[in-house]
Amino acid sequence: MRAQVQENHGEPIVSRERPEPVAAPGEVVLNVLAAGLNHLDLWLQQGDTGDSLSLPRVPGTDVLGEVIALGEGVAADLLGERVLVYPGRSCGTCDFCQAGHPSACRRFEIMGYSYDGGYAEQIAVPAGSVVSVGADAPLSWAAVPVSYITAWNALVVKGGLTAGKVAVIWGATGGLGNAAVKIAEALGAHVVAIVGSEEKALWLSSSGFSGDILVRGDDLVKRVRAVTGGRGVDLVLDHVGSATWNDSLRMLAVRGHLAFCGVTTGYSVETDLRQIFGKQLTIAGTWIGDPADLEAVVSLLQKHPEALPVVQNSFTLDDAAAAQETLADPSGNGKTILRCQ
Amino acid sequence: MRAQVQENHGEPIVSRERPEPVAAPGEVVLNVLAAGLNHLDLWLQQGDTGDSLSLPRVPGTDVLGEVIALGEGVAADLLGERVLVYPGRSCGTCDFCQAGHPSACRRFEIMGYSYDGGYAEQIAVPAGSVVSVGADAPLSWAAVPVSYITAWNALVVKGGLTAGKVAVIWGATGGLGNAAVKIAEALGAHVVAIVGSEEKALWLSSSGFSGDILVRGDDLVKRVRAVTGGRGVDLVLDHVGSATWNDSLRMLAVRGHLAFCGVTTGYSVETDLRQIFGKQLTIAGTWIGDPADLEAVVSLLQKHPEALPVVQNSFTLDDAAAAQETLADPSGNGKTILRCQ
Amino acid sequence: MRAQVQENHGEPIVSRERPEPVAAPGEVVLNVLAAGLNHLDLWLQQGDTGDSLSLPRVPGTDVLGEVIALGEGVAADLLGERVLVYPGRSCGTCDFCQAGHPSACRRFEIMGYSYDGGYAEQIAVPAGSVVSVGADAPLSWAAVPVSYITAWNALVVKGGLTAGKVAVIWGATGGLGNAAVKIAEALGAHVVAIVGSEEKALWLSSSGFSGDILVRGDDLVKRVRAVTGGRGVDLVLDHVGSATWNDSLRMLAVRGHLAFCGVTTGYSVETDLRQIFGKQLTIAGTWIGDPADLEAVVSLLQKHPEALPVVQNSFTLDDAAAAQETLADPSGNGKTILRCQ
Amino acid sequence: MRAQVQENHGEPIVSRERPEPVAAPGEVVLNVLAAGLNHLDLWLQQGDTGDSLSLPRVPGTDVLGEVIALGEGVAADLLGERVLVYPGRSCGTCDFCQAGHPSACRRFEIMGYSYDGGYAEQIAVPAGSVVSVGADAPLSWAAVPVSYITAWNALVVKGGLTAGKVAVIWGATGGLGNAAVKIAEALGAHVVAIVGSEEKALWLSSSGFSGDILVRGDDLVKRVRAVTGGRGVDLVLDHVGSATWNDSLRMLAVRGHLAFCGVTTGYSVETDLRQIFGKQLTIAGTWIGDPADLEAVVSLLQKHPEALPVVQNSFTLDDAAAAQETLADPSGNGKTILRCQ
Ligand SMILES: [Zn+2]
Ligand SMILES: [Zn+2]
Ligand SMILES: [Zn+2]
Ligand SMILES: [Zn+2]
Repeated sequence: MRAQVQENHGEPIVSRERPEPVAAPGEVVLNVLAAGLNHLDLWLQQGDTGDSLSLPRVPGTDVLGEVIALGEGVAADLLGERVLVYPGRSCGTCDFCQAGHPSACRRFEIMGYSYDGGYAEQIAVPAGSVVSVGADAPLSWAAVPVSYITAWNALVVKGGLTAGKVAVIWGATGGLGNAAVKIAEALGAHVVAIVGSEEKALWLSSSGFSGDILVRGDDLVKRVRAVTGGRGVDLVLDHVGSATWNDSLRMLAVRGHLAFCGVTTGYSVETDLRQIFGKQLTIAGTWIGDPADLEAVVSLLQKHPEALPVVQNSFTLDDAAAAQETLADPSGNGKTILRCQ
Repeated sequence: MRAQVQENHGEPIVSRERPEPVAAPGEVVLNVLAAGLNHLDLWLQQGDTGDSLSLPRVPGTDVLGEVIALGEGVAADLLGERVLVYPGRSCGTCDFCQAGHPSACRRFEIMGYSYDGGYAEQIAVPAGSVVSVGADAPLSWAAVPVSYITAWNALVVKGGLTAGKVAVIWGATGGLGNAAVKIAEALGAHVVAIVGSEEKALWLSSSGFSGDILVRGDDLVKRVRAVTGGRGVDLVLDHVGSATWNDSLRMLAVRGHLAFCGVTTGYSVETDLRQIFGKQLTIAGTWIGDPADLEAVVSLLQKHPEALPVVQNSFTLDDAAAAQETLADPSGNGKTILRCQ
Repeated sequence: MRAQVQENHGEPIVSRERPEPVAAPGEVVLNVLAAGLNHLDLWLQQGDTGDSLSLPRVPGTDVLGEVIALGEGVAADLLGERVLVYPGRSCGTCDFCQAGHPSACRRFEIMGYSYDGGYAEQIAVPAGSVVSVGADAPLSWAAVPVSYITAWNALVVKGGLTAGKVAVIWGATGGLGNAAVKIAEALGAHVVAIVGSEEKALWLSSSGFSGDILVRGDDLVKRVRAVTGGRGVDLVLDHVGSATWNDSLRMLAVRGHLAFCGVTTGYSVETDLRQIFGKQLTIAGTWIGDPADLEAVVSLLQKHPEALPVVQNSFTLDDAAAAQETLADPSGNGKTILRCQ
Repeated sequence: MRAQVQENHGEPIVSRERPEPVAAPGEVVLNVLAAGLNHLDLWLQQGDTGDSLSLPRVPGTDVLGEVIALGEGVAADLLGERVLVYPGRSCGTCDFCQAGHPSACRRFEIMGYSYDGGYAEQIAVPAGSVVSVGADAPLSWAAVPVSYITAWNALVVKGGLTAGKVAVIWGATGGLGNAAVKIAEALGAHVVAIVGSEEKALWLSSSGFSGDILVRGDDLVKRVRAVTGGRGVDLVLDHVGSATWNDSLRMLAVRGHLAFCGVTTGYSVETDLRQIFGKQLTIAGTWIGDPADLEAVVSLLQKHPEALPVVQNSFTLDDAAAAQETLADPSGNGKTILRCQ
């Protein structure tokens, strides 16, 4: 079968022939219908991330597939199912693993980054890691896993977001940000979306978004607070980092919550600690979620297909290198997928 | 102004002229656009409920109105807003009131039952009890308050329902049951709806419901468990009582939750306690929710208008007595409202 | 080595010679310092419990031991430690096991009941199931596991008991009841202890209990409510069943919690459902807890040795049959242990 | 009656004669038995805090008193009770007040700082703000309110601390730090206490503390992590600020919690955001707690009198100015109180 392989850091991925995977006991083999691209691909390509990465590696953290073979001990009714894959593995025995939090395990690894992923015609994965999405699930489901797992964990599991609350989402047209926007709206929260340009604001409006859109610029904190009559908002989802951290704290109402999901602008920032204790804020760090989060968000999307990712670009498996170039474009919105069959 | 008044127990309500209400400090006066009917109306009419009821009384617990006058101290921007009203009042100073749970106050009273409600052209209510629903809100909003507050409190606040869980709803075509169905689906839960007849099943299908529908009858518990491959469900919402209580317990999976919202079939029932500790079930009793629940559910409905109540019958204010007759019909589905202007 | 064995239902346990256990990979071998008796012993002896039991079986669910040998892969610093053992095992792979709730697993089994326990000079157990209790831990620690795990899970994990709340404990001189009393007092809750006789009241007073003691009899609900000025209590721990269930519901304040831990008086009871929804009660069923509960309660007892079980009777391993006779005596208080070395 | 009054910023407090307080409706008058000193006194004295402060002001946030007179509408059984006072007041009507969180109210004010406190022979306070502590309560209770309310809120309500967890407490010999140490030990947590000097370590040992003591200095983070075998701790309580914030984050285990209660060393600090999302930390800001926290902690202390504050210095009311000088001494440990009768 064909797979796309990162063979050397600093070079584009290349197409290679690989043996067809076989289902070990407890595993299933999937025909990969589509794979979603993530910034992890670029980190793997660059290779200077601080993680210990070994090459060659098949990228592909987000996978939509169809079960075509079952290993020993796997329930027969999985055969033929269209599924997503939870994109991580861990030790299975530590306290965190036993409490349902493999992402907190010291030995947690991400598919398509630390072990081979879905930029391939087929892949073998643990049967316990797949979640059925329905026979008619469109290919846009392939862009769900990483972004939606992370957003669900940050917004709902840790942030307690429900209908009736006001949530600010930074970077609302990117992968994680748009997943958060769509989840928050599906839950009935009021969303204040922050975007980087008027073009992105237009794109967001045209995607069906019904909340407030604010373009980054002067007086942003003041404009956010004005949406709530000066009170501040209940939750901010920030995955930008040093450039936004203090504004995020200032936007929050008393007893507000900062869902902090990583950095793209630097990890070191001068912090005004008075915001944190003076307003009794809570902050929770998240960089991915756990398997139960994938199950939950699949269920949400089945009831609310309008909350599926917006796939902006779609390439064939063989064009993966070209597809990855779209990732690096900061003016891009929405998600990019590979059609792998 | 015209109002509909319950003057004597055991008799139909009658139309009476009443003075126009005036906004006391902290109050607003509403033009009542529509009022929703509830079974509370019948209890008030019958009068043998065990509650101390005084007559005459204007029924009307569910009110959609437009703010036409402001009392002293009320923010000016409420004027002209289309609003729902939280239909209860309490002492305001006990531990429960201070913790945001007026429905637990010993002195909690329900509008349209213990004090005058919305079967009238106008009504004065505390400004703090209204929630804006948007200038274009259709009259079906009038059927929201009691049913949706109760269902939200039972399903979400106490039951922790989220996407990814399986919920059984008894009486899924009635006011409370259908509110629960629509909230649970909007949240992304998988709903198993139980109805009393094939006719009700048809009605539910045609209302846009996408989950499983089971008609009461033989082997109901077995059929419910079959939906989950024998595992049992995560949550059951039961407001029927002695006729369904034990089946509800049996339908639940290990660590499942029974949201128990009252009885229509009798309050005394032989209970198999082994279900409760053997399966580590949780049970939470609810009969209405708190003001925050109304705010939350309004927010949910603004994002998901498809989850608004299905108004099956609509009458003018003057036809209130005829409207109340629809309540007593057990074959009825959906909600009934009065148009009050 | 010597072990006590249940060879036939309906007969006393007998002393037998067994081969010394060997530590398989991941296991440790313990010298059993003492083993606590539980009512499970009687159920195993009777054998008509509805569980599938196989004989011969070494009873002994509660074990205090010293680690004398390590299997492959076990950390060396466990050697010589004085430890308690979490007395259950499960599949390890189902959703419940992966979420840290093995007691909810379909394949959960109890040590000393479904597999061999601690009425022996030595026992091999999984290294992951032991919790260190300190080199000087007295033998009364042997009576901790089942009772304290269950009480902690019911009171704290599910019941949310904290300082400042009022808790009723039924059967406050028995194993589970007294564990609950001691945990609740250690947490700073105010405890209302219910006992069956004046003799038991005296025993409880002399054990260092500082709360209210009520002897079962007329007007018990009224007397309990009087302790709280008529308000009702925040939490009731009930492990009696049909004889107490309705009184438990009536004792509770609005928004109170019933921690329901099993039955000794029958499992079928006519229930007044109005208590449950009218007072917005919550109920949670528990019959044992999970491994994290053992770790938590060991930590509590290390800070509060006054909360250790009261060992009323102590026998040698060889006198196990005589020791078990104390279990059947309803006038007994406190716990019985076997000294196994 | 005599009271101690801050008349001008920058000067010592002075003794003044004031009229005896009268109980307004809903109030009680207390004979102040003792009043605890807090750093708030020094801020009031200095007067450059950013808060709007008006003088003259009677300091005294922590009050132990005996009820000697009742206003209209107050229950008679309060007369003669020995009580603590919740030291804050708020609007009573905002969302935060109605949810039991007056400390989040925009109009929250602190007794002895924004309105007159307990450095006086008598004081009138709302009956709803007092909590009975028992007829024999020693004067050390006077040092409880601010420190213990804050520590309880941070550790338990927001931090979820229970037995079985490991907690680091910075500044463990100061008022807040020592309150946290004593609460955490009473709950059965394992405490790692950080102190500023060997002298403070000795003082802490001699106060009955049974956990680990670490003196600030080289490799502090490494030494803390060594206590948990390198894993990191479950909770850190930090009220120091810029000097300790990053070390606090580094000490925490994956999924650990930072209870952040204010700053004494500066509020601006360069933060390594990777700690927060990479370890999935949670952070909660606290600077005081709510009335329910005082009730809870009083209940805890009644069961655990060994957890009462250590009163290091005791002065008469007339010596208040001298007493306040002890506050400024950084080598001091424990609490200082005024005997006001
Ligand atoms: Zn692990
Ligand atoms: Zn009240
Ligand atoms: Zn299992
Ligand atoms: Zn307020």
